[in-house]
Amino acid sequence: METFSNLIDLDSYSPDEWNMIVELAQQIQKNPALYRSRCSGKIMGTLFYEPSTRTQMSFQTAMLRLGGTIIGFDNPSTSSVSKGENIKDTTKIVSSYADILVMRNPYEGSAKAAALTADCPVINAGDGGHLHPTQTLTDMLTLKNEKGRLDHLKIGLCGDLRYGRTVHSQLKALSRYEGNEFILISTPELALPSYIKDVLNARGCTYKEIYSLDEAITGESLDMLYMTRIQKERFSSEEEYNRQKDVFRLDTEKMKKAPKDMIVMHPLPRVDEIAMDVDDDPRAMYFTQAKNGMFVRMALIISVLEGRLGAPKLLTGTIKNDVECTNPKCITKTEHYLPHSFKVQGDICECEYCDERILLD
Amino acid sequence: METFSNLIDLDSYSPDEWNMIVELAQQIQKNPALYRSRCSGKIMGTLFYEPSTRTQMSFQTAMLRLGGTIIGFDNPSTSSVSKGENIKDTTKIVSSYADILVMRNPYEGSAKAAALTADCPVINAGDGGHLHPTQTLTDMLTLKNEKGRLDHLKIGLCGDLRYGRTVHSQLKALSRYEGNEFILISTPELALPSYIKDVLNARGCTYKEIYSLDEAITGESLDMLYMTRIQKERFSSEEEYNRQKDVFRLDTEKMKKAPKDMIVMHPLPRVDEIAMDVDDDPRAMYFTQAKNGMFVRMALIISVLEGRLGAPKLLTGTIKNDVECTNPKCITKTEHYLPHSFKVQGDICECEYCDERILLD
Amino acid sequence: METFSNLIDLDSYSPDEWNMIVELAQQIQKNPALYRSRCSGKIMGTLFYEPSTRTQMSFQTAMLRLGGTIIGFDNPSTSSVSKGENIKDTTKIVSSYADILVMRNPYEGSAKAAALTADCPVINAGDGGHLHPTQTLTDMLTLKNEKGRLDHLKIGLCGDLRYGRTVHSQLKALSRYEGNEFILISTPELALPSYIKDVLNARGCTYKEIYSLDEAITGESLDMLYMTRIQKERFSSEEEYNRQKDVFRLDTEKMKKAPKDMIVMHPLPRVDEIAMDVDDDPRAMYFTQAKNGMFVRMALIISVLEGRLGAPKLLTGTIKNDVECTNPKCITKTEHYLPHSFKVQGDICECEYCDERILLD
Repeated sequence: METFSNLIDLDSYSPDEWNMIVELAQQIQKNPALYRSRCSGKIMGTLFYEPSTRTQMSFQTAMLRLGGTIIGFDNPSTSSVSKGENIKDTTKIVSSYADILVMRNPYEGSAKAAALTADCPVINAGDGGHLHPTQTLTDMLTLKNEKGRLDHLKIGLCGDLRYGRTVHSQLKALSRYEGNEFILISTPELALPSYIKDVLNARGCTYKEIYSLDEAITGESLDMLYMTRIQKERFSSEEEYNRQKDVFRLDTEKMKKAPKDMIVMHPLPRVDEIAMDVDDDPRAMYFTQAKNGMFVRMALIISVLEGRLGAPKLLTGTIKNDVECTNPKCITKTEHYLPHSFKVQGDICECEYCDERILLD
Repeated sequence: METFSNLIDLDSYSPDEWNMIVELAQQIQKNPALYRSRCSGKIMGTLFYEPSTRTQMSFQTAMLRLGGTIIGFDNPSTSSVSKGENIKDTTKIVSSYADILVMRNPYEGSAKAAALTADCPVINAGDGGHLHPTQTLTDMLTLKNEKGRLDHLKIGLCGDLRYGRTVHSQLKALSRYEGNEFILISTPELALPSYIKDVLNARGCTYKEIYSLDEAITGESLDMLYMTRIQKERFSSEEEYNRQKDVFRLDTEKMKKAPKDMIVMHPLPRVDEIAMDVDDDPRAMYFTQAKNGMFVRMALIISVLEGRLGAPKLLTGTIKNDVECTNPKCITKTEHYLPHSFKVQGDICECEYCDERILLD
Repeated sequence: METFSNLIDLDSYSPDEWNMIVELAQQIQKNPALYRSRCSGKIMGTLFYEPSTRTQMSFQTAMLRLGGTIIGFDNPSTSSVSKGENIKDTTKIVSSYADILVMRNPYEGSAKAAALTADCPVINAGDGGHLHPTQTLTDMLTLKNEKGRLDHLKIGLCGDLRYGRTVHSQLKALSRYEGNEFILISTPELALPSYIKDVLNARGCTYKEIYSLDEAITGESLDMLYMTRIQKERFSSEEEYNRQKDVFRLDTEKMKKAPKDMIVMHPLPRVDEIAMDVDDDPRAMYFTQAKNGMFVRMALIISVLEGRLGAPKLLTGTIKNDVECTNPKCITKTEHYLPHSFKVQGDICECEYCDERILLD
């Protein structure tokens, strides 16, 4: 098995390598014409097992602006994939057509599973609620462009901190930079899970939990406020949702009280957690951020296709085929041929696909 | 807000500008190789909120034959758009990826709404039953190619003249050229609405209503016959439909009686309003017309991307957010952030999105 | 009607012409860079009336790797095609945009029907259970690459030989080469139909029917084993399926007993007729075969676009519009304008679309 410069999990690379991608994105942004034939003759295969128009278009545009071309699917119900083909076979075949694969799949660990069998590098464009590394790189480029740095920032994160994949990834990434401080703004029910807090603690990061956006905005001198959606279904009842939603909604009233240089970011799509008239505020950076996603993906495609990121091994743990991952959304639940690989520490096995921790009896 | 050379409504431009597009289309048609890299490096975003394979492929081919590339969606049910994102956010993001947007949407005024927020020019590829300007340009190119002129023509229009968007657009356009005469062929129930007759009258155009295709073909010396579909549902009953449909159906019998130089056009798709053996008649121009659509769209893309059309303001009327448009298919019904903009004349407000006239009490 | 180098049915061409395509594919495979601009400026239209992601991506990749571009649809439910447009109109229009059409359609004879009206060459990418010529060319390239020849081979075909389109096509093709011998491995219910046996007999081919894969593998010195899926529904009952399926399932146990140089092929997708651990056997050629499909399609696109295959007439028989083809899946059942064309021999009419034989009373 050949190994490629896949991007499955940002954690496989060092902050130096993240910085390299972000800096290349900045160069591309400054002079895109220099890169317009960089991937000429190369084909990207976009395997979208669930719809994500924005992410897919961002990747497609990135490839086209590098002179490459695209094949792929975005609707498994109209593809042979729905005839029950396993990821290995699909990946084997499409990677024999394409030079780079971009995969979106609702199962956690699916991108790693794809990378195990693909004959070309794989980029993870979201594997369920697990990882979405190119969103995190997009956030980092936006911070770097707007704030000039990725360290010594005071960052507010507002919304569903419990289930929010982008929030978790960003915290894991930004906690690797010195001096960052996090203000966690959510309901108690949607507070950050303890395993992410463990990461912050282990890295000596300061964080504070606050239950009102207003308080965070007025009381803390935030450099950046990261808004995310709170899905209605996360609340115990419709009434509870209606009672709470405004507390975590950003509007022009709140923006008036916010620091003059506090930029606002959002991974989009938004529903109504940011009022539309905030869009006209020069501190609103979410559309800029979306555009940055294209530049970061251009930088990433170049880095991956040119092998600039090294080729970290995909599975480094212990194969224990008798142990089953307990996460029902883990890719090992549907792709039965995958080796059950775990990082073992004492009687805890951490699944190498979805990062679930399993306590052995 | 920057303004671009959008094409939302032909009426925003003068016949001189229409002619310029048609003439450029003729030049492209004569020597397509000259234009094959004209839009190299440019990306078109096709936002199709409802399926229209033919229109979409025509635009895509046009862009590809100019050396450009394409992103987009054609199936909102497999796109994030179905998660309820508003047009503003979608447009903002896709226009940050693409250089030109082409939009199809069932709501009237939707393309104008998109142009208000897009960061690149927008072409209207059909906004519900409202406008479809590139179809009209296609018709004009076909007339120009086949008849050598756009004026002093006797034109028969047959079918559903009441609801037929293409018919209305064509009448509004061709009535701007001198000496054109119109024969309106339909059932009384599907006759041309009076507000279009008002336009014809205002411009001093001659027109006549006839209730039988046969009579129009034999009695008038038509230069062109424009056939359109009558949808079954437009008739009061299945029996009524069956009784009437042949009256408005073109077949080889009727073609035998038609003028030797009467070309036949149809926006396609047809159902059975033109018998298939008419296809072999050299006067049948509907497939040629479909191909012309590609050349006109090439000319339009060049004109829009190169800013040749000027940049007319999108909203020129008065904002009255307390007045609601009464058209249930108006885009303001779903996109609540849009300013309610009207052209006000006395106590009549004409909606600047869908052209509905509202009588103020 | 102009005639093009269509590829509807391999039988329209001679083995010399098949060899030419296969040899061109080998040259492309050896030096793909030489061909990367060969179809620059050309557009392929992919008309997929039913999903077949793999075939479609294979064609798309082939065109992209020749420098061409792509338009098309893959989901008739989101295309105007679902509004009931006939194949003639769709084909007329798309062939006025594109330079070459690739068509997949569940009706038998549909690709020929399309070629009758298209204004550019048409490639059949599968017309129901009838023909799939590019799969057969793919198989031939794989045999040529791996075995060095297409003649004097001993070939096992396992699975559903009764309904398997790829098996029938391959037998019809390989029986044209000298000295090939076929071992037919299936249940009696799914045995090869007699009209294919007639072809083999007429060409003096040796064949043998065997009811167990194990026996075929151990008893015959196969050069190649062609595995295909047996659909569950083909069995009389679930029990019968479960009882029989392992008999026709290839696993590592069986591979141990197989000849050292017996390559394994499969048109894919597989379900479980080949155990996944067979993939690691160097004799497993199905993923290589899938990749070969891309090279064969590149060769075919060049041959068709450059008119290298001559232009065989599509209909050569007798028009008998009063005779109805008895095959309910024949394209003449839905496209009523098609001339009913038959090859007549005595009182037997063979439909020129779907090859059904009709006995006249």
